[in-house]
Amino acid sequence: MAAGSYMRQVHICEVGPRDGLQNAHHRIPTEAKKAWIQAIAAAGVAEIEVGSFVPPGLIPAMADTAEIVASALRIGNLKVVALAPNVKGFERATAAGAHKITFPVSASRAHSLANVRMEPEKMVEEVRKCVRLRGTKGPEIEAGVSTAFGCTMQGAVPEDDVVRLAVMLAEAGVDCVALADTVGYANPAQIRRVFRRVRGEIGSKLEAAHLHDTRGLGLANALAAFEEGVRHFDSSMGGLGGCPFAPGASGNVITEDLVFMFESMGVPTGIGIEKLMEARAHMVAALPGEPVYGHMALAGLPKGFRAAA
Amino acid sequence: MAAGSYMRQVHICEVGPRDGLQNAHHRIPTEAKKAWIQAIAAAGVAEIEVGSFVPPGLIPAMADTAEIVASALRIGNLKVVALAPNVKGFERATAAGAHKITFPVSASRAHSLANVRMEPEKMVEEVRKCVRLRGTKGPEIEAGVSTAFGCTMQGAVPEDDVVRLAVMLAEAGVDCVALADTVGYANPAQIRRVFRRVRGEIGSKLEAAHLHDTRGLGLANALAAFEEGVRHFDSSMGGLGGCPFAPGASGNVITEDLVFMFESMGVPTGIGIEKLMEARAHMVAALPGEPVYGHMALAGLPKGFRAAA
Repeated sequence: MAAGSYMRQVHICEVGPRDGLQNAHHRIPTEAKKAWIQAIAAAGVAEIEVGSFVPPGLIPAMADTAEIVASALRIGNLKVVALAPNVKGFERATAAGAHKITFPVSASRAHSLANVRMEPEKMVEEVRKCVRLRGTKGPEIEAGVSTAFGCTMQGAVPEDDVVRLAVMLAEAGVDCVALADTVGYANPAQIRRVFRRVRGEIGSKLEAAHLHDTRGLGLANALAAFEEGVRHFDSSMGGLGGCPFAPGASGNVITEDLVFMFESMGVPTGIGIEKLMEARAHMVAALPGEPVYGHMALAGLPKGFRAAA
Repeated sequence: MAAGSYMRQVHICEVGPRDGLQNAHHRIPTEAKKAWIQAIAAAGVAEIEVGSFVPPGLIPAMADTAEIVASALRIGNLKVVALAPNVKGFERATAAGAHKITFPVSASRAHSLANVRMEPEKMVEEVRKCVRLRGTKGPEIEAGVSTAFGCTMQGAVPEDDVVRLAVMLAEAGVDCVALADTVGYANPAQIRRVFRRVRGEIGSKLEAAHLHDTRGLGLANALAAFEEGVRHFDSSMGGLGGCPFAPGASGNVITEDLVFMFESMGVPTGIGIEKLMEARAHMVAALPGEPVYGHMALAGLPKGFRAAA
């Protein structure tokens, strides 16, 4: 855990360098990606998902992840996270030195097959293998339950399936479970219901909410999750990455707006909004022509605004 | 009250033809405005703020309001609302036949002077005169407390000032009070606190939340207000009107996204989303080049989406 995080009430993991860039239209040069990640960390973001260890060649934007992890590790006071879709990815992420490795485990069978070419149950076994491989000294392991609130292929995803999968993952020995609204289908009532049910089953192993803003409900869903006790959120600077099915719609919930919401509510994030804007400028300069989103960046802070103490 | 509203849990007043067009860059021809209002009503919106009776010449986009009110009255099953800034506007709105007349009463002294050229207390007196003029058979009278959550001129607005003003307005005899986040400064914690305090003082006379999305918190604030018991919301189709201080930022909370949020939560609005999209198309066609916003319109409904019963 990074220094300074003791004074955070809410902990934000910036996933733009992974989830954002993976879906972006433009490529960012490796050196610019490193500088952007440094700028994000300099704003006080204590955790960054910097890339994914997918099969080389599958997602060209992620081909430099090992180098990016190495660079991020030199920053200090930063939890460096990488995504892995299988044992092989886990081994590469571990070798690279990532502090935390996150696995996408889809609650939707169709999405699971399309995303990792495995049934959800098979994917749980893959995660279990990694837990065993890690032993006692390896990286933290997170499982993100993808499509936990709906799926563009399957449509509705039964809440029972989400709860069952979260329980299986907790029993497989992961350190923490996140629930992900991968395609922006969630609504606040559903967020409250599903987080409450999963917490009832796996307690404090339920950690993060990974939300998308595809239909504009990202911050409302984050508020609902916060009020259900969630204190860890994934978000992406500039809502980077958009949604391949929704031209003009942002992707992940937007870091700048999420930080603004919490800070304006008096909930400390440990993140400085002005420095966050500098990191945003880095990203915009490094990705010319890429659509970026964010209300706060356009409208500016309210007159007399004070961040949370 | 319009027919059919018995099955609404949330009542939405479309304010685009007033708040939206008043701040839009482009003018809409009077006949197109009438057709747009008809399309909004056809989607099941039971209340529309169709224009304002400001001094002729001051806001050219509102010069046709009497004709627009007359046209809207012929729709039937629609509560026709007009804004009035003073006694003279009230008399014109009453003569035109508006069912409900709403007054902007700023909690910020600086905003009140800039907007209606009166101190807030003087504006309360103006409203009181209108309540007396109305007698027993006139239109419903609403007072909207503007800048209730902050002001671009004054900065923070003390919550005590908002509570005091709401109490004065209730005592002046208005039928209902709305709290307005005129410049998009509110956050969900503040929304909960202020609505709770004002309801504690004036009870069910506190009715609507008028929210803006300038800093992206529009829906999160609407959710917070809903959870505090608010069942009446103002919103604007396409977030029309933007914000004069924030290029690229939407204005009022976006009707389409607000309806989607409530319907997806299982909260009926009485509004049909597909017909609402038709009304949006009317607006887009009638205002070529005008920036319009809305996530739901871009991303589409989730697969298998079902509206609230």
